[in-house]
Amino acid sequence: MAQTIDITLTTNKKEKPPENKLGFGIYYTDHMFILDYSVEKGWYDPRIVPYQPITLDPAAKVFHYGQTIFEGLKAYRTKDGRIQLFRPQKNFERLNRSNARLSIPDVDGELALQALQELVRVDQDWIPSAPGTSLYLRPFVIATQAALGVAPSTEYKFMIIMSPVGAYYAEGMNPVKIYVESDHVRAVKGGVGEAKTAGNYAAGLNAQQAASEKGYSQILWLDGVQRKYIEEVGSMNVFFKIDGTVYTPSLNGSILAGITRDSIIHMLKSWDIPVVERPITIEELYEAGANGTLEEAFGTGTAAVISPIGEMNWQDKPLVIRDGSTGELTAKLYDTLTGIQNGDIEDPYGWTVEVKQ
Amino acid sequence: MAQTIDITLTTNKKEKPPENKLGFGIYYTDHMFILDYSVEKGWYDPRIVPYQPITLDPAAKVFHYGQTIFEGLKAYRTKDGRIQLFRPQKNFERLNRSNARLSIPDVDGELALQALQELVRVDQDWIPSAPGTSLYLRPFVIATQAALGVAPSTEYKFMIIMSPVGAYYAEGMNPVKIYVESDHVRAVKGGVGEAKTAGNYAAGLNAQQAASEKGYSQILWLDGVQRKYIEEVGSMNVFFKIDGTVYTPSLNGSILAGITRDSIIHMLKSWDIPVVERPITIEELYEAGANGTLEEAFGTGTAAVISPIGEMNWQDKPLVIRDGSTGELTAKLYDTLTGIQNGDIEDPYGWTVEVKQ
Ligand SMILES: Cc1ncc(COP(=O)(O)O)c(C=O)c1O
Ligand SMILES: Cc1ncc(COP(=O)(O)O)c(C=O)c1O
Repeated sequence: MAQTIDITLTTNKKEKPPENKLGFGIYYTDHMFILDYSVEKGWYDPRIVPYQPITLDPAAKVFHYGQTIFEGLKAYRTKDGRIQLFRPQKNFERLNRSNARLSIPDVDGELALQALQELVRVDQDWIPSAPGTSLYLRPFVIATQAALGVAPSTEYKFMIIMSPVGAYYAEGMNPVKIYVESDHVRAVKGGVGEAKTAGNYAAGLNAQQAASEKGYSQILWLDGVQRKYIEEVGSMNVFFKIDGTVYTPSLNGSILAGITRDSIIHMLKSWDIPVVERPITIEELYEAGANGTLEEAFGTGTAAVISPIGEMNWQDKPLVIRDGSTGELTAKLYDTLTGIQNGDIEDPYGWTVEVKQ
Repeated sequence: MAQTIDITLTTNKKEKPPENKLGFGIYYTDHMFILDYSVEKGWYDPRIVPYQPITLDPAAKVFHYGQTIFEGLKAYRTKDGRIQLFRPQKNFERLNRSNARLSIPDVDGELALQALQELVRVDQDWIPSAPGTSLYLRPFVIATQAALGVAPSTEYKFMIIMSPVGAYYAEGMNPVKIYVESDHVRAVKGGVGEAKTAGNYAAGLNAQQAASEKGYSQILWLDGVQRKYIEEVGSMNVFFKIDGTVYTPSLNGSILAGITRDSIIHMLKSWDIPVVERPITIEELYEAGANGTLEEAFGTGTAAVISPIGEMNWQDKPLVIRDGSTGELTAKLYDTLTGIQNGDIEDPYGWTVEVKQ
């Protein structure tokens, strides 16, 4: 049942940035959504208000104990002027799995989706339409109780902010160089790796900076226990086509269950291309590289959708994939999935959700 | 060289809570310290201002990517009316080690100490004087840049807030029951366990809640790789006296280097009691329990200083220590260390720092 979301419109609309200068997560739209939580009232007061700073006690738990989770998805403007979301229910299912791991109370997924659609509708002028652009949507929950005892917060805010984002491949698809990290780890079984929570990203900043100074744009993370199983690439899941079969690490408790990952697996299956989820070691990848069976490699995630991998470096051993060119299947997956997302291609999977204008 | 810290005093002092109802981290003093950072200016504008909410963009990185670290220490009011800090330089050394791990720029330790002393001086009326009470000091850094790209922030705030805290053992020292966690892990080698950063605490909330529902007040964490080495107990380091020797897990990269831990090791050495830092398995602890050589067990940390452990539970096997009573050495360490901290005992180690009033 639809709840009433209170809407306060801004009287002071911002100027929109040029669509060829959007970047990622730099500009924010005119409005945002807020929902409050207290132990006594549960979640209350859903409202859309002008985008504005939030005011928190300096003792708010989010600052000290990191009790926070987030989501990321996109709204697309189709050529015929409609607005589409891509599998948004999946994001709110994952949001609540993250919530459970972080001892944060469940958010009503239906209300969250309603709020998301309403907010996108209110700020629909912000959805860019140049090829490859979209409106990035960031739902998140923060613990706001002002108390320094280490215990779950009694107060939270669920919010949604939105940012118009640029084309990831403005100059055409460009395979990335990735650095296989042997020192730091992102997550470990029993930890919070499968939750989309702030601490996972903080833990990766150091290694990411070091890799970028060496000329690599992303980190490939190995598992924290044996340091040999491939986990993820930066904020992406990762796939390898070896001898005609596509492999991706199984969801083992320390990997984020990407919605793009799930979609790619579905698409491959529907195309009758063999796809296998299993633990993959970095050694076997290098072997496949050496014996010529490593045909393609790519990362998957909401931001880039698909990112071809052209080169890896593990313990100073380089592994060049396809001479650094984008694979055929990689390109086909990218074209099809982005086509479905932006409405250029009919959606055979029932994944897109239209936002009423 | 002392820097100039701008001071704005409140015109509206709060009422102080009764000293027998302080709890931990519930009440905050009248003022706080802030220091800002930008890439262009470095750290700038050190100031003491009335305690007040802070205003941040909802896209501030601390909310999304957990780039934040903190410290915790105490100020004590001595019987003769002086104010003492305990090894505060150590906290700012650790703060900068945490900063480095989280890709946060170094804070000038001298300025931080000066700010801490100045803030304590300004709010000195807030230092409680009932036995066991103190003023808890919480320096912390948060990433404030409004940007959703996963990269270190270009803006930060370093702040200090303060909270009068109650006697931990208002009813006398009471050994705690701890639950040995076999499912979740707090940290792993290569992660951020040795940094005092928010995500480590968020990761532990779930297990802590489950343990508390089973009647245990703390979690004992095992290592994330082999799940057999003892790491920490809640927010405390841990010590075991076995057959006359005191053992504590060595600093292995996933354990926080506690300042209380370091102080206890120093004290034991100066008392000629053998103390050994090495990896300790949970099995050997249970063996020592079974063969009668496990003489005492206690946690160490700023909040409780020393917390005797009366009982453990690992995989449904209970291990009762000393019939649940506090050990002699545990009590002596507690009395001596708290005595030094609150000024009842002369400080032979040069650990205390007096705050000018
Ligand atoms: C750590 C991590 N892995 C993988 C992904 C990919 O998930 P999704 O495809 O749902 O965007 C993300 C999010 O973008 C992520 O943050
Ligand atoms: C995880 C953790 N371990 C150990 C300690 C003990 O450190 P210290 O003795 O410096 O308070 C703390 C902080 O109190 C902590 O948060």
